Amino acid sequence: MATAITDLSLVHEFLSMRKATTDICRPLLTEDYSVQPVDFVSPPKWHLAHTTWFWEEFVLAKYKQKYKRYNDTYAYLFNSYYNNMGDRVDRQMRGINSRPAVSEIYEYRAYVNHQMEQLLEDEKNNKELKKLVEIGIHHEQQHQELLFYDIKFILGHQPYHPAYATGYEMKKVNVEEQWIDIDEGIYDIGHSGDSFSFDNELGRHKQYLNNYSINTNVVTNGQFLEFIKAGGYQDFNLWHDEGLFWKDTNQILAPLYWHQKDDVWYEYDLHGLQPLVLDEAVRHLSFYEAFAYAEWKDMRLPTEYEWEVAATHLNKGHTWEWTYSAYLPYPNFQKAPGALGEYNGKFMINQMVLRGSSRVTADEHSRDTYRNFFHPSMRWQYAGFRLAKKML
Amino acid sequence: MATAITDLSLVHEFLSMRKATTDICRPLLTEDYSVQPVDFVSPPKWHLAHTTWFWEEFVLAKYKQKYKRYNDTYAYLFNSYYNNMGDRVDRQMRGINSRPAVSEIYEYRAYVNHQMEQLLEDEKNNKELKKLVEIGIHHEQQHQELLFYDIKFILGHQPYHPAYATGYEMKKVNVEEQWIDIDEGIYDIGHSGDSFSFDNELGRHKQYLNNYSINTNVVTNGQFLEFIKAGGYQDFNLWHDEGLFWKDTNQILAPLYWHQKDDVWYEYDLHGLQPLVLDEAVRHLSFYEAFAYAEWKDMRLPTEYEWEVAATHLNKGHTWEWTYSAYLPYPNFQKAPGALGEYNGKFMINQMVLRGSSRVTADEHSRDTYRNFFHPSMRWQYAGFRLAKKML
Amino acid sequence: MATAITDLSLVHEFLSMRKATTDICRPLLTEDYSVQPVDFVSPPKWHLAHTTWFWEEFVLAKYKQKYKRYNDTYAYLFNSYYNNMGDRVDRQMRGINSRPAVSEIYEYRAYVNHQMEQLLEDEKNNKELKKLVEIGIHHEQQHQELLFYDIKFILGHQPYHPAYATGYEMKKVNVEEQWIDIDEGIYDIGHSGDSFSFDNELGRHKQYLNNYSINTNVVTNGQFLEFIKAGGYQDFNLWHDEGLFWKDTNQILAPLYWHQKDDVWYEYDLHGLQPLVLDEAVRHLSFYEAFAYAEWKDMRLPTEYEWEVAATHLNKGHTWEWTYSAYLPYPNFQKAPGALGEYNGKFMINQMVLRGSSRVTADEHSRDTYRNFFHPSMRWQYAGFRLAKKML
Amino acid sequence: MATAITDLSLVHEFLSMRKATTDICRPLLTEDYSVQPVDFVSPPKWHLAHTTWFWEEFVLAKYKQKYKRYNDTYAYLFNSYYNNMGDRVDRQMRGINSRPAVSEIYEYRAYVNHQMEQLLEDEKNNKELKKLVEIGIHHEQQHQELLFYDIKFILGHQPYHPAYATGYEMKKVNVEEQWIDIDEGIYDIGHSGDSFSFDNELGRHKQYLNNYSINTNVVTNGQFLEFIKAGGYQDFNLWHDEGLFWKDTNQILAPLYWHQKDDVWYEYDLHGLQPLVLDEAVRHLSFYEAFAYAEWKDMRLPTEYEWEVAATHLNKGHTWEWTYSAYLPYPNFQKAPGALGEYNGKFMINQMVLRGSSRVTADEHSRDTYRNFFHPSMRWQYAGFRLAKKML
Repeated sequence: MATAITDLSLVHEFLSMRKATTDICRPLLTEDYSVQPVDFVSPPKWHLAHTTWFWEEFVLAKYKQKYKRYNDTYAYLFNSYYNNMGDRVDRQMRGINSRPAVSEIYEYRAYVNHQMEQLLEDEKNNKELKKLVEIGIHHEQQHQELLFYDIKFILGHQPYHPAYATGYEMKKVNVEEQWIDIDEGIYDIGHSGDSFSFDNELGRHKQYLNNYSINTNVVTNGQFLEFIKAGGYQDFNLWHDEGLFWKDTNQILAPLYWHQKDDVWYEYDLHGLQPLVLDEAVRHLSFYEAFAYAEWKDMRLPTEYEWEVAATHLNKGHTWEWTYSAYLPYPNFQKAPGALGEYNGKFMINQMVLRGSSRVTADEHSRDTYRNFFHPSMRWQYAGFRLAKKML
Repeated sequence: MATAITDLSLVHEFLSMRKATTDICRPLLTEDYSVQPVDFVSPPKWHLAHTTWFWEEFVLAKYKQKYKRYNDTYAYLFNSYYNNMGDRVDRQMRGINSRPAVSEIYEYRAYVNHQMEQLLEDEKNNKELKKLVEIGIHHEQQHQELLFYDIKFILGHQPYHPAYATGYEMKKVNVEEQWIDIDEGIYDIGHSGDSFSFDNELGRHKQYLNNYSINTNVVTNGQFLEFIKAGGYQDFNLWHDEGLFWKDTNQILAPLYWHQKDDVWYEYDLHGLQPLVLDEAVRHLSFYEAFAYAEWKDMRLPTEYEWEVAATHLNKGHTWEWTYSAYLPYPNFQKAPGALGEYNGKFMINQMVLRGSSRVTADEHSRDTYRNFFHPSMRWQYAGFRLAKKML
Repeated sequence: MATAITDLSLVHEFLSMRKATTDICRPLLTEDYSVQPVDFVSPPKWHLAHTTWFWEEFVLAKYKQKYKRYNDTYAYLFNSYYNNMGDRVDRQMRGINSRPAVSEIYEYRAYVNHQMEQLLEDEKNNKELKKLVEIGIHHEQQHQELLFYDIKFILGHQPYHPAYATGYEMKKVNVEEQWIDIDEGIYDIGHSGDSFSFDNELGRHKQYLNNYSINTNVVTNGQFLEFIKAGGYQDFNLWHDEGLFWKDTNQILAPLYWHQKDDVWYEYDLHGLQPLVLDEAVRHLSFYEAFAYAEWKDMRLPTEYEWEVAATHLNKGHTWEWTYSAYLPYPNFQKAPGALGEYNGKFMINQMVLRGSSRVTADEHSRDTYRNFFHPSMRWQYAGFRLAKKML
Repeated sequence: MATAITDLSLVHEFLSMRKATTDICRPLLTEDYSVQPVDFVSPPKWHLAHTTWFWEEFVLAKYKQKYKRYNDTYAYLFNSYYNNMGDRVDRQMRGINSRPAVSEIYEYRAYVNHQMEQLLEDEKNNKELKKLVEIGIHHEQQHQELLFYDIKFILGHQPYHPAYATGYEMKKVNVEEQWIDIDEGIYDIGHSGDSFSFDNELGRHKQYLNNYSINTNVVTNGQFLEFIKAGGYQDFNLWHDEGLFWKDTNQILAPLYWHQKDDVWYEYDLHGLQPLVLDEAVRHLSFYEAFAYAEWKDMRLPTEYEWEVAATHLNKGHTWEWTYSAYLPYPNFQKAPGALGEYNGKFMINQMVLRGSSRVTADEHSRDTYRNFFHPSMRWQYAGFRLAKKML
């Protein structure tokens, strides 16, 4: 999506993106589609339906004349969090609805795909529509990544750790690490130009940065293992007060999906439970754990500005990376009118920014200005980090 | 099961009972098998597996030489509450395991059925085994009834109330009600004879009863509706202190599955959402609601002894009936040795006894001495009541 | 109160009972009066006020002409659980009200005492009033015992275990234990005659008992220590399912107030933290623990009927004793009209009966027909037990 | 404290600050000292003891030879959150300890004052000590302000709203509001120079600001009332997603301490329940409410940098003011070694910065660089806000 959408390709791009979503679900059993082990994990079936609901409610209902919804009750069932779109099923209740069946949701997707295909052909010159379709494509790509997180959580928390599929193994971080020095001064931050971005990246603006050094590499499993062995989880001086409480309450002793058996460490990944690979990027960490590691090293996490300014020099794409920036609006942030105004702005509190992209981010869904965000305690997403420090 | 099992029929009886279990699940979609909307509802898949685990662990592992379990991990996955049988999945976590698949569970059932068939033929004269098979059959029949409760809860709590199947409609209580007078005196209570009973019914013993009158009929939907209309849910003097708290906290204003739309009352039942049928037995009540109704009538619930003594005169079989007896051991109650000792005894606290049987109780699974039991606030089971009073 | 109240003594009895209440509080600091460490413990100040409120609302407001309340707002502040008496402060919120001051509550007591004194002199021949005063005296005596429980809990849960006072040490159970055999047959149960009783003891009625043996003595600290040493808290087969959950969740390993330091056991009592005295009655046990001990001994707890029938032969008065009877109404139980009807009846669910009396029960506040009751998990009250068994 | 401490005045300053703490408590009854209505409110007694503990553990134990603690157990009882200082009473348990008595705590204070007086005279030239005493004074001044918050909460949540004292009424915001324009450019942020500051203000550094306008005045009760009347609490588009959840869960419809009776608004303040004064600063707001008001006005809150740069032009001192800045470390933030390193750094997550000072801030305890911080949902502190906007 880094390039403008040409008239000819939009239908193709839409359909190929839609197929990518269902491709992710192909290895699943019917049983896997409906499970919700915790509040923040949605059943795969729900993602398939909600991303379809998005096209129906935000595009078809608005642009297609006399559009007849596939099923009127879905407006209620598959709304995620849009207050402007009416009532909805409580988030933690998504896993109790065994109906509509998985096959029904696939029919719903096919129906909406067909309707969209017609609409896009009928309205080739409608620029406003194109803009909306771009957003819809990026919205669904976000859910593609969430599907990986949720599937991994669902299968990875079953007693016998079934594998999802091969083909999603991590790349090794086997480039030697270096420190990049960045001089103090005024830098431009944020998205500009005609290409797609979310509203939270807009409002390119000046930011003053002090001298700093940033590492080319993300921290690896092997490096994080040193922290564990050195007693990092036990040294309270390395932790935020709330991090300490979170860690102790949840008995956290290692990244999510790490398992120790007879002194050997294993990691559950999409291809099953595997011996820990030391030169892969460490992932599935909370902000608290990333922060504690940096404290232990007497360094710190980069801010999102520092990350963005140095981005062209970094070895990235392994995992999203926690920054030491709170998710707050850029100066002069403007939220979109109507329901799409709920997309980003209303979440700008109590969350930290992550930059980069991960092994399971959709192609063309990463940008150096992209602002991802999660609560500091969340770690089912692909979240790792890199170090920064004062320039020597 | 009220009669002794003959040698010829045991295999047949076993297999036909096993088929009855899967027959109950036949109308379900694959998606319906794995859902656990609340702690006390188990996924249908779990019932299918647990009842099979019971045969494997309590019978085959003990009586079949060199028995090879279908899958060793199932011993952990499908134990319900038997501490003597080792660790198990936490009850509230049953709904997160999408694996093993439904089809796998059916294969598990077929495997165990086949093994059991062989065993029963090989051990035709083993009386100890027969005794155990009797218990196993009654155990699985209890789960057959629980399957109805859980399926009804699962489907009945989905936003659009899908029906399960026809054929399970309630019979009407259309016999005129009468009051039966029972004289004071000493009565024998509890099971005796060679026919099957659970351990909690045994120890036939004397009980002194005062004069009382008991109604031939259970209370109907129509009668309970009068209570609602008279403000019974609002009059605190009719309620236990804990009943009041339970009612207010959960905003209870009617029996479970009752819905009011535009001043018309509907009831969700296995055949879907239907206008309330006034002359059906009222069900899905907590003990608190049954008690409050009786208070409103200036009467009371019968004790389980009063119920048992009058049983031959009663119009029953519509629904289990709350009694005003706590579930405590009979004098000289003996719990079985080993894991089966956990079947009843350890639940004899904080629960109330229900007598009778319901529309979805397995045939041959009701006895006048049968002691069913639930916590006073539970109402997803078929629970109604009848009235008793002082003899005039 | 076991004898009828004579006209001459009622004022005296009232005032001396009132003084006994404040005598209990004399050793307290002002700070101790307002603390509420857990929901079920009320601040001593609250007891002083609530028992006064009772006289004001149930007696003075009704019988004294143009009675002027001490402070109109107290009707709301010091109602305990009487729905018929209007709104009230939530139970768990009693500890946040530092006002009215302790001194103010003492003035409130003095005011009401004076008013009562006048009333009782003016209405010497009012039998209905006398009846009510009897209830009020017994009500306040119940709160006298609760004051001991709550004060002990408040002081006993402070980090350095301050003593309350001397003079309340336990008597030793140093009579040799015997087994009393009781023959099967019909026995009369419940209160009769003109002397005072609560409504829950009334309705003397026949009860059939089987042969049984009951121990003359309650179980001692030393005997219970054997259970602990034998691993009784670890053997799941001795416990109710809910007892096991309660014990594990709350990490219960000994009676409340027992502390182990360097292999020596101590018990906190009203005179401070003391080495455990082996021949005192074990107290501060839940029903679950009493039951588990009996299971370990292969015996059982007596029912409340068995206790009452054998009462004249028992060594009692050390502690209240759990029975294996649920707190349910006697046949033909009648609750009083109006607010006093809330005194007992609405609590008749989910609780077990205790019989006897304790070291801190008010004199003249014990009867062999007295039915005390608590939830099975409660143990801040003086609760122990004795054993029963099948007659050999 | 804005000026350097001279040798002559340190003892005097210490003692006068200590007296100010106890002066705040003078209007309290003994009963008021021990109450903890919610987790985040500490009993006044605890503040008196903890601030004394601070001197004992951080100063006397370190600098006074052979210092004998007043009571060794206080090290455990009155530690707040310093992991480096050992175990402590859980925060939410502070209110259950009626002992030590209030009078005992006053003796503790007197003892430590005396010891400090001696120490300060003996060590007149110890600069390290002076530095520490400065921190201790500011620490206790923070608790002086917390005492006002906690006392107000304790008294203000009692059913009949007792007044604390007069003399703490708000000043009216009766200067006409203006908009101050600040030009874009690089500004210096943070504390510099020799005067006292906390570690979180240090590291003066450059910050680039865009053009902005900031209001000279904080928002008043009257202005906020307009928001309420316009339905601001009901318009979900004005709220953060978590703000909405917080508001609905807690049924928030107005600032804390506002009460509406018969269409008239009252505010509880230290001098009691009073009709709302429209031209006082609105206080006791969460960040969410301040944000929603700004959204309603189509403006925003200033960042902490914008506030600091404009500070000399602002009408302030009424209330702390929420900013739209997360509480994160300044570039090159250094936390102090040892236990004092826990003072600020470990709280730098999930909180928002407030600037300014309030009506109950200790004299000399405000600075334009001062960074106060609270969780966005907290509002028992004096928290209001002012508006900022894009320069026109």
